[in-house]
Amino acid sequence: MSEFELIREYFFWQDIPGSVQVGVGDDGAVLRVPVNRELVVSVDTFNAGVHFPLETPPHAIGYKALAVNLSDLAAMGAEPAWFTLAISMPEADRQWVSCFTRGLRELAQQHGIFLIGGDTTRGPLSVSIQVMGWVEPGQALLRSGARHGDLICVSGTLGDAAAGLAIVQQRLQLSGGAAEHCVQRLNCPSPRLQLGASLRGRASACMDISDGLLADLGHILKASGVGAYLRHGALPLSPALQQLELAQRLDFALRGGDDYELLFTLPTDCLREVMESADNLGIRVTVIGVIDANQPGLSLDYTFHDERSGYEHFSQ
Amino acid sequence: MSEFELIREYFFWQDIPGSVQVGVGDDGAVLRVPVNRELVVSVDTFNAGVHFPLETPPHAIGYKALAVNLSDLAAMGAEPAWFTLAISMPEADRQWVSCFTRGLRELAQQHGIFLIGGDTTRGPLSVSIQVMGWVEPGQALLRSGARHGDLICVSGTLGDAAAGLAIVQQRLQLSGGAAEHCVQRLNCPSPRLQLGASLRGRASACMDISDGLLADLGHILKASGVGAYLRHGALPLSPALQQLELAQRLDFALRGGDDYELLFTLPTDCLREVMESADNLGIRVTVIGVIDANQPGLSLDYTFHDERSGYEHFSQ
Repeated sequence: MSEFELIREYFFWQDIPGSVQVGVGDDGAVLRVPVNRELVVSVDTFNAGVHFPLETPPHAIGYKALAVNLSDLAAMGAEPAWFTLAISMPEADRQWVSCFTRGLRELAQQHGIFLIGGDTTRGPLSVSIQVMGWVEPGQALLRSGARHGDLICVSGTLGDAAAGLAIVQQRLQLSGGAAEHCVQRLNCPSPRLQLGASLRGRASACMDISDGLLADLGHILKASGVGAYLRHGALPLSPALQQLELAQRLDFALRGGDDYELLFTLPTDCLREVMESADNLGIRVTVIGVIDANQPGLSLDYTFHDERSGYEHFSQ
Repeated sequence: MSEFELIREYFFWQDIPGSVQVGVGDDGAVLRVPVNRELVVSVDTFNAGVHFPLETPPHAIGYKALAVNLSDLAAMGAEPAWFTLAISMPEADRQWVSCFTRGLRELAQQHGIFLIGGDTTRGPLSVSIQVMGWVEPGQALLRSGARHGDLICVSGTLGDAAAGLAIVQQRLQLSGGAAEHCVQRLNCPSPRLQLGASLRGRASACMDISDGLLADLGHILKASGVGAYLRHGALPLSPALQQLELAQRLDFALRGGDDYELLFTLPTDCLREVMESADNLGIRVTVIGVIDANQPGLSLDYTFHDERSGYEHFSQ
């Protein structure tokens, strides 16, 4: 199967939306951003053996590669529009491509995002997706707006994906249902697009948790020039994680990556309406701490016995 | 050196243009497309050992990875605006990153394109760049507009990059100056952005030559639903290629990839003004054939002794 046959067979599944003048198949796509909207762009790469274990099912690779990118749009409060897919594969395995595409398509259709181009090449398995969306001018949620007294909030539960990875890598055992829950959270995270949209004009800062709560909160504090106080007892944990002893579940919840929940700061007078929106979406939102502009850095009422924080590529 | 330090040290070199509201450093970039412009988007991946020999200097990898993408914007007649860089590297080698970035920066500054985001990850060496630009509504150059009687034209000379690859892989020997010319054309192709812009409203179809003239002309013929007649004696060849015997130089010129010259079709009454524009830019434009809507496929007054056409990933 050639590169062109592959693309033709598996990547044309959609009705073309009005914003797409020219899609897949020319040197570039030609697109229309609606009047009075800013374009939001983000890219994430997903490498076999680095970002996911080699034995990850292709359906989950396709799903998650798009999910982590949609999560960036959610963190900006943006509405998804288009994406490109640059994929390198060691060989053109029809079965693999078919499953991969099914995962990708499932999520793309769910969120109304449209594939407008890409590149299919030979090489070690690697998927690089770039998502584009839009937001009203000045409404994008940034990392830099956290202010003294703002509440620190997270969506969903924390640490499940890190526990899922430990299970897949046979470093952790949990009972059947709990193990399945954590592996599912690792492989198929839910991008919080509707929640992100509901935070526009409310949250003072927002990002998604990909490298772990401590590392990612550090980015908000640095960008905003503030400090924070965090209560470990307030961290939202799934029943699966609650089975673990304290040190281990806090390690997963505070330093585990891959949760793709939203981490955001809220002026106290916005809390009630955000909680109501989240309730309507069926998404749990939990206050886990408060911004403190008078004391730089992160104060946590818990001490780890080692020095690691979140995940960084290249740091050993 | 951590991922974040790397990004901070090497990828902030530019004055932020007015179109960029938020650049590198948040979950996504926030951008403004000018009023009354369509967005043009293209992505190309560049893998070590597949798209370039492992021994390619990092400066050339940085330069070429952006050049092949800019070439796609040129082929669409678009004006470059922004790009993202997704790079996987086996290790964070400061020296390597510094040289790579220098090549990238050189070309980016030359064409006024601005880095707005990216992802730096660990993995086998792979560079995926997505370029974005804009064009007036309906003015993008597509592959699908070639009509009966249109002249088939190419910019520059053909086959030099393929000869350069053969030299690097020690399959071909040429005298010093000629060898250097071909390797330079392989490593540092010139994206024809100004020529592409001058073709707007004139060329009936356009693309860049990345997979070889025969393969790429085939895409235009298919997209336009026409055939073509091509004269092998008209192919523009550099003095370096003219040293080779006929079969070999035609193999490079007709089936060698990586030239990144523009291939376009012109109604005859546009030829003179296009030639004048090209002269002003110091770029050679050559008529190599004509579109024939009455006879499907490609007629060439030369026969190869084997069946290959251009380069396709995965086809053996």
